[in-house]
Amino acid sequence: MFERFLSSETKYLRTSEIRDLLKLTEGKNVISLAGGLPDPQTFPVEEIKKITEDVLTNYSDKALQYTATPGISEFRKELVNLSKSRGISGIDEKNIFVTVGSQEALYMLFNILLDTGDNVLVEAPTYLAALNAMRSRRPNFISVTVTEKGPDLNELERKVKESNANGKKVKLMYVIPTAQNPAGTTMSTEDRKRLLEIAVKYDFLIFEDDAYGFLVFEGESPPPIKAFDKEGRVIYTSTFSKILAPGLRLGWVVAHEDFIKEMELYKQNVDLHTPSLSQYIAMEAIRRGVIQNNLPKIRRIYKEKRDIMLEAIETYFPKGSRWTRPVGGMFIFAWLPEKIDTSKMLEKALQRGVAYVPGASFYADYSGRNTMRLNFSFPKKEELTEGIRRLAETIKQELST
Amino acid sequence: MFERFLSSETKYLRTSEIRDLLKLTEGKNVISLAGGLPDPQTFPVEEIKKITEDVLTNYSDKALQYTATPGISEFRKELVNLSKSRGISGIDEKNIFVTVGSQEALYMLFNILLDTGDNVLVEAPTYLAALNAMRSRRPNFISVTVTEKGPDLNELERKVKESNANGKKVKLMYVIPTAQNPAGTTMSTEDRKRLLEIAVKYDFLIFEDDAYGFLVFEGESPPPIKAFDKEGRVIYTSTFSKILAPGLRLGWVVAHEDFIKEMELYKQNVDLHTPSLSQYIAMEAIRRGVIQNNLPKIRRIYKEKRDIMLEAIETYFPKGSRWTRPVGGMFIFAWLPEKIDTSKMLEKALQRGVAYVPGASFYADYSGRNTMRLNFSFPKKEELTEGIRRLAETIKQELST
Repeated sequence: MFERFLSSETKYLRTSEIRDLLKLTEGKNVISLAGGLPDPQTFPVEEIKKITEDVLTNYSDKALQYTATPGISEFRKELVNLSKSRGISGIDEKNIFVTVGSQEALYMLFNILLDTGDNVLVEAPTYLAALNAMRSRRPNFISVTVTEKGPDLNELERKVKESNANGKKVKLMYVIPTAQNPAGTTMSTEDRKRLLEIAVKYDFLIFEDDAYGFLVFEGESPPPIKAFDKEGRVIYTSTFSKILAPGLRLGWVVAHEDFIKEMELYKQNVDLHTPSLSQYIAMEAIRRGVIQNNLPKIRRIYKEKRDIMLEAIETYFPKGSRWTRPVGGMFIFAWLPEKIDTSKMLEKALQRGVAYVPGASFYADYSGRNTMRLNFSFPKKEELTEGIRRLAETIKQELST
Repeated sequence: MFERFLSSETKYLRTSEIRDLLKLTEGKNVISLAGGLPDPQTFPVEEIKKITEDVLTNYSDKALQYTATPGISEFRKELVNLSKSRGISGIDEKNIFVTVGSQEALYMLFNILLDTGDNVLVEAPTYLAALNAMRSRRPNFISVTVTEKGPDLNELERKVKESNANGKKVKLMYVIPTAQNPAGTTMSTEDRKRLLEIAVKYDFLIFEDDAYGFLVFEGESPPPIKAFDKEGRVIYTSTFSKILAPGLRLGWVVAHEDFIKEMELYKQNVDLHTPSLSQYIAMEAIRRGVIQNNLPKIRRIYKEKRDIMLEAIETYFPKGSRWTRPVGGMFIFAWLPEKIDTSKMLEKALQRGVAYVPGASFYADYSGRNTMRLNFSFPKKEELTEGIRRLAETIKQELST
């Protein structure tokens, strides 16, 4: 009806397949392995209740009032500390910016940095909502294959060279080095250093999404690439959605002050500032050790769930499939026999009572049609096994036709 | 240092003069009439404490979890009721969209609707942060003079005709009909109907910002333009920042479902959804009557402060000045003798210990150099009188040189 009033950008918007799926399965007898929700068991509800009461008793004038665009000063100081616990050093408050979830950090920085046609390196597969946020800027995606060990850096360097030789410099790489969404892969420390060296050599920025850096439940979590960054070339973002509660919508950025200043200007237009109440709650959660004390529990719950899902996959999945064995995060990624188109198969899976995300959504070029993302953080334990069983049946049925 | 990596849009960003000023005066012995903050006395702190406790007891799984992009369903239903209390009828949940403050509604809708060069009608003066959000889209502004009674509709219709005659149709008008920021003017019901008729006649959209609709403290608050809209031509936005607490960052939109769907797609990129906890708190505040019961107190406080500021202005301001006499909201706008440039005078005012916002910021073409915006909602009563006294001295000094 009002089509004639829409801007040209609007038509580049794509709905998130994940969210549409969530809607589809809502209230039905479908086990959803499609979501990306944390287990609500991991929310420190009582601690948040106590903190909120204290915040509204002690700081109500500030916690209910407007605040500065980059975030509440005392909270930014705590975020320096939290970032340091991930191995990032040499930063202070001026390098921190608070956002409405890390999604807003992605959105704003892609807008601040990217023009139509700019060359951007992305992992294939990579985070869907990041791809969509980038797509609205219409960049030129250069996809780098993700192996079980993370992005293939030989392929990456070759593609960067090719692109630069053609006179189109690479501007940026968006990368999730730890417990990648959707692949579940984690880059080695060596690869992280090498990726940074390549970025320095060919002069592009690294935009590092560390959403799952605190959620490594097997072995040590490698330091983020930002920890090795000496010149401010790496822009780092992380989130409270997985370590405290997504409903607060809190993310943060660690970056060179130049980028922080640009974000401040940008965010004044978008929403003025991130909710003060959320910021005070998270600030106190850091100060009181709620975050650090809660991490072992989150890791235990997710490791247990990953084990259950992995065991079910090993038991039920047909030959010719392979899948990642994540050491952290919330997702397993599977490559099925080439014959399978997971987008086409989805309807049949839903009929059998199980949902997943078709992998094509996570590829900039919509390839990866035989892949799928499976979430183990949200479903109940018994649902994980039953969901995988139903899914395996669907796959076997599909293979036999 | 990283200038070469910035997108072309980035250079169109302007810092908000208001926010820079706030920084300038922070912690100093300056009475700031420059802000736009609500009086923290108006926050129903105890009620919010009780509500938050109950929300975290009863709905923690939902209030701390991710939720749907357009907003929590039950909250959207309450927003239908709240909007109806402003006279808007014939709407349901599907016409409601929840945003991170009404600023995000402005930002998203300008992006959804405007292309570079599009003709947009704005009041002169109008809300600075709306102008800045529009500026990043580089539209063609058509300014309409605001008189003491609101925008001059004869001038408006003439300019629309001219523009259309030149083959450049007007696409949109952004308008704040009630207790306008910065002018403090309120359009009559007659003028609202006439503006809508003009929009229908010349086929443009009206984007109505009703931030102060609940804050009319003298006489009745006229129904918003949206209340007369039969075809979905009016997009309406309002905020909880002035009727509950800005720190929650909550705004909402009432619009034709077509626009709501576009907002959903857009917001998935920006920040996935508005904080769930904030939404549950505001939902309960509506349900328990906290909002409606608190309005008389807010109106009483602001009316008293307006009276004090008006009396001080009448006492101290030099001849040749005029100012609005707002029936609601938080601002008085003043036109000083033509000789005065309020941007240039600001430094001297700060030296005398008073801050205001130079009016030029509120004009799309940066005209109105002899005007200023004065905030009466936030300063303490004794500061209002003393602030105006210092300001009047500055003006008189400026006139005498």
